Amino acid sequence: MSRVLGIDPGLRRTGWGVIEIAGNRLRHVGHGVVDTDARASVPERLRALHDGLAQVVARFAPDEAAVEESFVNRNPDSTLKLGLARGVALLAPALAGLPVHEYAANRIKKALVGAGHADKEQVALMVRHLLPGVGEATADATDALAAAICHAHAAGTHARWQPAADAAAKPAR
Amino acid sequence: MSRVLGIDPGLRRTGWGVIEIAGNRLRHVGHGVVDTDARASVPERLRALHDGLAQVVARFAPDEAAVEESFVNRNPDSTLKLGLARGVALLAPALAGLPVHEYAANRIKKALVGAGHADKEQVALMVRHLLPGVGEATADATDALAAAICHAHAAGTHARWQPAADAAAKPAR
Repeated sequence: MSRVLGIDPGLRRTGWGVIEIAGNRLRHVGHGVVDTDARASVPERLRALHDGLAQVVARFAPDEAAVEESFVNRNPDSTLKLGLARGVALLAPALAGLPVHEYAANRIKKALVGAGHADKEQVALMVRHLLPGVGEATADATDALAAAICHAHAAGTHARWQPAADAAAKPAR
Repeated sequence: MSRVLGIDPGLRRTGWGVIEIAGNRLRHVGHGVVDTDARASVPERLRALHDGLAQVVARFAPDEAAVEESFVNRNPDSTLKLGLARGVALLAPALAGLPVHEYAANRIKKALVGAGHADKEQVALMVRHLLPGVGEATADATDALAAAICHAHAAGTHARWQPAADAAAKPAR
């Protein structure tokens, strides 16, 4: 059994969600959003984001983290702001010693809905279907849970592949 | 007297430099570069960057930090990578409780050389002129020292403006 923390980073709002994987079964553990004050300075907002995520890591003791890697190309300023938040979102679990995985937004959507261009509502519906105990959750939190579920699928695939690769690596006799 | 830590962030190499301001005099205290291993994962590199900067903050005990804000528009990927490093560069001194200031690259060049489009060598020459004790330093380190000097100038200007603003705020009689 292992716990995965999913993170959907943003300077204004960072969603997070924790799931438990036992074999091929998933269980919802918790989710939420770290908000930052838009009137505060950027370094203060990054500190608030870091502190919020560090608290989540301390409280839920996940074994691994999965961070959504999205590209906002509307303008360089929003790309850079997203980068700042993502830097902190990758750092917080890494500082706690967790392995941190990144998944492209399209890959997460494909893992959940089967299509890389699914909309947020389809993703949220699938998250609720896979984690019936989720209850109320904003899109930021369901996106974070989706990242965690995507990692569960990827990790599952690797586990299935592992024996074959090991077998192939052995000498024939 | 106050100590300023300047930072020129980058995922591959982050320059840092510490200066001391006493009135209108500047003194070089230290400088260096935090390198990260390009073969390591991005979260591991961000952790190495954070740990390196946290060590600098602990060793030199600066009062404030000044971080260069540069925009790389070559492609969205390099903008995003720079954003990740800048997020960590802003966070490390903020976690230590320091006020963190951001200065656009052009403003730093203008503060040192008088022109916003000066090249790196002109900036480095001016850094060596203002801080004769600097010795050997790479461009990343001189850029970081330049950010600290720019903050010293900006802080000096504010100090000169402060009394006038206070006086103006007082009632006329």
